[in-house]
Amino acid sequence: MKITLLGTSSGTPTRQRNVSATAVQPERGKAWVLVDCGEATQHQLLRTGLSLLQLKVILITHVHGDHCYGLPGVLASCQLNGRTAPLTLVGPAAVWRYIQAVIELTELHLEYPLEFVEVSDQLQLPCGPFDITAAVLSHRTECWGYRLEEVAVTRRLDTVRLNAEGIEPSACYSRLYRGERVRLGDGRELEGRDYWMPAHAARAVVVAGDNDRPELLAEACCGVQLLVHEATYTEAVLQRVGPGPGHSCAAQVARFAETQGLPALLLTHFSPRYLLHPKRPKDLSIESLRDEAEQYYSGRLHLGQDFDTYSIARNGEVSKLPE
Amino acid sequence: MKITLLGTSSGTPTRQRNVSATAVQPERGKAWVLVDCGEATQHQLLRTGLSLLQLKVILITHVHGDHCYGLPGVLASCQLNGRTAPLTLVGPAAVWRYIQAVIELTELHLEYPLEFVEVSDQLQLPCGPFDITAAVLSHRTECWGYRLEEVAVTRRLDTVRLNAEGIEPSACYSRLYRGERVRLGDGRELEGRDYWMPAHAARAVVVAGDNDRPELLAEACCGVQLLVHEATYTEAVLQRVGPGPGHSCAAQVARFAETQGLPALLLTHFSPRYLLHPKRPKDLSIESLRDEAEQYYSGRLHLGQDFDTYSIARNGEVSKLPE
Repeated sequence: MKITLLGTSSGTPTRQRNVSATAVQPERGKAWVLVDCGEATQHQLLRTGLSLLQLKVILITHVHGDHCYGLPGVLASCQLNGRTAPLTLVGPAAVWRYIQAVIELTELHLEYPLEFVEVSDQLQLPCGPFDITAAVLSHRTECWGYRLEEVAVTRRLDTVRLNAEGIEPSACYSRLYRGERVRLGDGRELEGRDYWMPAHAARAVVVAGDNDRPELLAEACCGVQLLVHEATYTEAVLQRVGPGPGHSCAAQVARFAETQGLPALLLTHFSPRYLLHPKRPKDLSIESLRDEAEQYYSGRLHLGQDFDTYSIARNGEVSKLPE
Repeated sequence: MKITLLGTSSGTPTRQRNVSATAVQPERGKAWVLVDCGEATQHQLLRTGLSLLQLKVILITHVHGDHCYGLPGVLASCQLNGRTAPLTLVGPAAVWRYIQAVIELTELHLEYPLEFVEVSDQLQLPCGPFDITAAVLSHRTECWGYRLEEVAVTRRLDTVRLNAEGIEPSACYSRLYRGERVRLGDGRELEGRDYWMPAHAARAVVVAGDNDRPELLAEACCGVQLLVHEATYTEAVLQRVGPGPGHSCAAQVARFAETQGLPALLLTHFSPRYLLHPKRPKDLSIESLRDEAEQYYSGRLHLGQDFDTYSIARNGEVSKLPE
């Protein structure tokens, strides 16, 4: 399972960071899911191996421009690239009103089916490689976090059971693994599927939208290997800015992740005041966010950069892939 | 006077070319004008010296996405950058309906005044450094070309008239140049302004939108030094594609420029099938467009690339500035 950050800036792009978009891919296959679609997401995609023709679902967290102004361009380029397969868009009703208006007012003709599913806490979207559910967040406008859990977990044979039934390792093991029916020398008939078990626990990630109350994700985060969450600024800056914008500081998210016992946390959506290679005072360096989060969180902490890809291995371990 | 291409692809961006946007700057001052605003125009601007705070007017040729999907992001980033000065938007009424809908539906709060002027063939927009007029074009939707003519032409002294009046070169020349009143030894009083004349003809450029009838620009192009016009494909490809999309081929634009006696022609808005560094058949190389245009046009021909800047010198000569 792979998570690629396509934009890690909040509000406005910088030369190093685009606005929000995140791609989630299963371990196998080319199908993928996009969470949020800030302006120029399609431009970012041109620098990855992800194809608009293999995009299955777009999940939008909320209707603010830095999370959805790239949507019309993605839909238009799907059309120009010859897409015919249906595309599912999930988000608040406001997102659908916005995109319908743009389609109509800019004479955008889509020949593939675009289906809208309004997000709710009842969302249960079986979508190709993932089961997708949602949790409502707290922001200036209706906003959601999405949990993506893999569906197709690799199988292995339940050799403990086979041994317990007195079935010794032999050529029949590989036939059972393939799901075939096997007749044993003693006349017993075995169904391969009866001896399958998942090779590992289903992996899951939560990708959250803008949110000033991380604890709202407590239930959604149960059992996930990774939480991708905004940390727009430090606690000191948050106190100066005030609660109006509805964002979290690094400390808040780190405290939540620690309480929750999350194995890995990926921070993103950084205020443009934090530069990647700063010549600025230390408190405006991106490292100030890392320092703050490390004070509260003892798991694997990552600060995202555009085009970073994180993998969740079958054993649940999260690591950044080499570029 | 400088023209910077911010996007030279049609329909969809490629790794080398963004969709349409063109910046026009006067010789002096930081104010500038944007013609069209495809998605990620604000991202392109981050790679130039052009500031959103100095942007005076946005001229949109038509409402298709590759010419206006960057507009919401530009307006939002003007706000986030602290703009307070009014911004004028010019275009067909459809552009205003589109941008009003996006502003409302995505909760975009602009605290600076955004003024809309509907384009027409009566448009006479004195805008800081330029007089702006418009000519209607032929496309699948209402579409316009804009003519920008510089207002403030540098002055020089009319030395022929001074000589004819028996006023010899002396210190009084520089006082007249500065606009002062000068009393001569013989009692005559001269007003500096009476002896001013423009140092050169006012420079002008036409930046056209999508258009399959270049001849519609005949009047607008009178006396201009440069026409920036789409040449989406070659004549052979146009014949295969048919007239549906409403675009010009290189030959069409070149023939018009030749008939019109235009000193310089800058082609842009190339179909993504033409690659910059092609490993493709020769007929899908960008050079095939150049070859075709050169057959019909004997002036200075340029094929645009993103971030190319062209200057119109005071003597009217158009040249590409070094990168």
